[in-house]
Amino acid sequence: MSAPAPRPLSPGDVIGILGGGQLGRMLAMAAARLGLRTHVFAPAGDNPAFDVATRSTIGDYADEAALAAFAQAVDVVTYEFENVPARAAAALAAHRPVLPDARALSTTQDRLVEKDFVRALGIATAPYMAVDDAGGLARAVAALGRPSILKTRRFGYDGKGQATIRGGADLGGVFRALGGAPCILEGMVPFIREVSVVAARGLDGAFAAYDVCENHHEHHILARTLVPARVSGAATTAALDIARRIAEALDYIGVLAVEMFIVETDGAQSVLVNEIAPRVHNSGHWTLDGAAASQFEQHIRAVAGWPLGSTARRGRVEMRNLIGDQAAAWRDILAEPGACLHLYGKAEIRAGRKMGHVTRVISE
Amino acid sequence: MSAPAPRPLSPGDVIGILGGGQLGRMLAMAAARLGLRTHVFAPAGDNPAFDVATRSTIGDYADEAALAAFAQAVDVVTYEFENVPARAAAALAAHRPVLPDARALSTTQDRLVEKDFVRALGIATAPYMAVDDAGGLARAVAALGRPSILKTRRFGYDGKGQATIRGGADLGGVFRALGGAPCILEGMVPFIREVSVVAARGLDGAFAAYDVCENHHEHHILARTLVPARVSGAATTAALDIARRIAEALDYIGVLAVEMFIVETDGAQSVLVNEIAPRVHNSGHWTLDGAAASQFEQHIRAVAGWPLGSTARRGRVEMRNLIGDQAAAWRDILAEPGACLHLYGKAEIRAGRKMGHVTRVISE
Repeated sequence: MSAPAPRPLSPGDVIGILGGGQLGRMLAMAAARLGLRTHVFAPAGDNPAFDVATRSTIGDYADEAALAAFAQAVDVVTYEFENVPARAAAALAAHRPVLPDARALSTTQDRLVEKDFVRALGIATAPYMAVDDAGGLARAVAALGRPSILKTRRFGYDGKGQATIRGGADLGGVFRALGGAPCILEGMVPFIREVSVVAARGLDGAFAAYDVCENHHEHHILARTLVPARVSGAATTAALDIARRIAEALDYIGVLAVEMFIVETDGAQSVLVNEIAPRVHNSGHWTLDGAAASQFEQHIRAVAGWPLGSTARRGRVEMRNLIGDQAAAWRDILAEPGACLHLYGKAEIRAGRKMGHVTRVISE
Repeated sequence: MSAPAPRPLSPGDVIGILGGGQLGRMLAMAAARLGLRTHVFAPAGDNPAFDVATRSTIGDYADEAALAAFAQAVDVVTYEFENVPARAAAALAAHRPVLPDARALSTTQDRLVEKDFVRALGIATAPYMAVDDAGGLARAVAALGRPSILKTRRFGYDGKGQATIRGGADLGGVFRALGGAPCILEGMVPFIREVSVVAARGLDGAFAAYDVCENHHEHHILARTLVPARVSGAATTAALDIARRIAEALDYIGVLAVEMFIVETDGAQSVLVNEIAPRVHNSGHWTLDGAAASQFEQHIRAVAGWPLGSTARRGRVEMRNLIGDQAAAWRDILAEPGACLHLYGKAEIRAGRKMGHVTRVISE
């Protein structure tokens, strides 16, 4: 069965959201501001999005009957994470448009498919090779050198599902430690900056990108985003152009984030694509306070078939994640003039868990 | 039984909100952003706040058992409207702090008590006289002249519960048309501007006001707010000082709005208080897009016992209400670069009903 075509929604219509975490929560609030209702579908657990959704359903992504009932109760389906199982997406798409669509999901769920897609557009990436077994890993390491990074093709995030291969590593052991799953090996890129472009493409084909974000990670988790990124004008132009080409090649509808590396050779900066997230992205959280329309509003506008909003920036912005017990600083942040605190309403503080973020906007 | 003393809340605690309209809805979203949960209590009907509340209870404000159960399920109680019945407030306050408190409610629920309170602070109002019967109305009209405005002491809003007394009016008929309820007659003030000050006072006694708002009404309903108000520097200073004195005299906790008239005599502007709203206010909706912390966040901070946020303005702001079928313009507003659309999720468009608002911020 083919997916119904997307159509513009009206106020009062219902946005279905797969996933009950902070991204779903912020999407639901953006939808509410625009007079839309929301219905969040998520497995049992700590689902802070349920707190602000019009309606919520606890269900498993493998329960196709529950997914079908959910789809029939909403006007369009979107999601907060790219690992929506293909069968779930198909079960939903039989009833309602799923945006971003199945192609965006299948392209970005698999690191090998994603990198092949990016390369086919003539866009640079780090060097990579597919790794299907320990022997393949040995050949890839011989070709790409050390250090290099072994990543599972699927289901990785925040440093999960990856391992750095250094001199003396037991290659078979490293491969087995990632579960023996299909992987890719990526050559290490001597980047000077990690950046991302958060952008949106509408049902009408309009494209709008926020300014390039400069991202700083700690323990493989985003710690801090600065906007605008401190990169050359040429790299900025190239990064924005890459995001547009990717969105257009996917005939994309919604917000996407493209993570990139900036490398410098003989004083000139160039851009390599690291990965694509077919959803709102942590590096775009600053837009809630620092841009005219937030990435959450922008995504809702796009999947509702509405015109995109303004990505104009309100100043220089810094966003810091509050990870684990960093959220205990909430009282100090509340007392800091002009700091914008966002807490996600998660029941339990755990190490490495994103509990909230704080944005500081400095007028330019 | 005396009310429990307010105490600072922690993220995850529950804000109880009486009233399920757009003000409750925007309060609930502000609370969620700060990691607080919400529980909205409202009578059956169209309750758009339920869409974004963690939990909601349909109940009557006369049902003291339901109110007690609600109070026991939350950490603090606040409200979106000043006509909370005194018995309901007392039933709630037996279990949890009600903020703003009973004194703020009793002072502002009755136009005569409110004006006496303001005058006792040495703050000017329009001339007024109590009217308890048709004979009293005749005496008041003789004293204050025509045109003048007869208003019920209680339960008036958006022009409801009031009538203008012009030459030739049948005074007994006008009094009966307002239900024979206790009234006040107010002399007509030749104001040059209607303004308001939206301000907050925290549990720690801190006071913070937004810039003075200039308000334009149509058919007795707020149509448009401009910030900053186009009034003299002296009037601005006086208006802000009046709001602070009122908040301090009430030992107020939360956001309040003071509506004022600006009159001009021999080129000098002076300020008269029209009325006090012990809650977030329509003339403060611009703060969602035009100020560092919105009035909704500010109210939540205050009733949570947290430090007040920054009232810094982001530019010159215009807020327009979308009343009745004006909300049909939503699509044009979405297409206007930089316009910030807010729709309240009300099920039915009715004449005179506030369906949403739009804010435009122009950098200064």
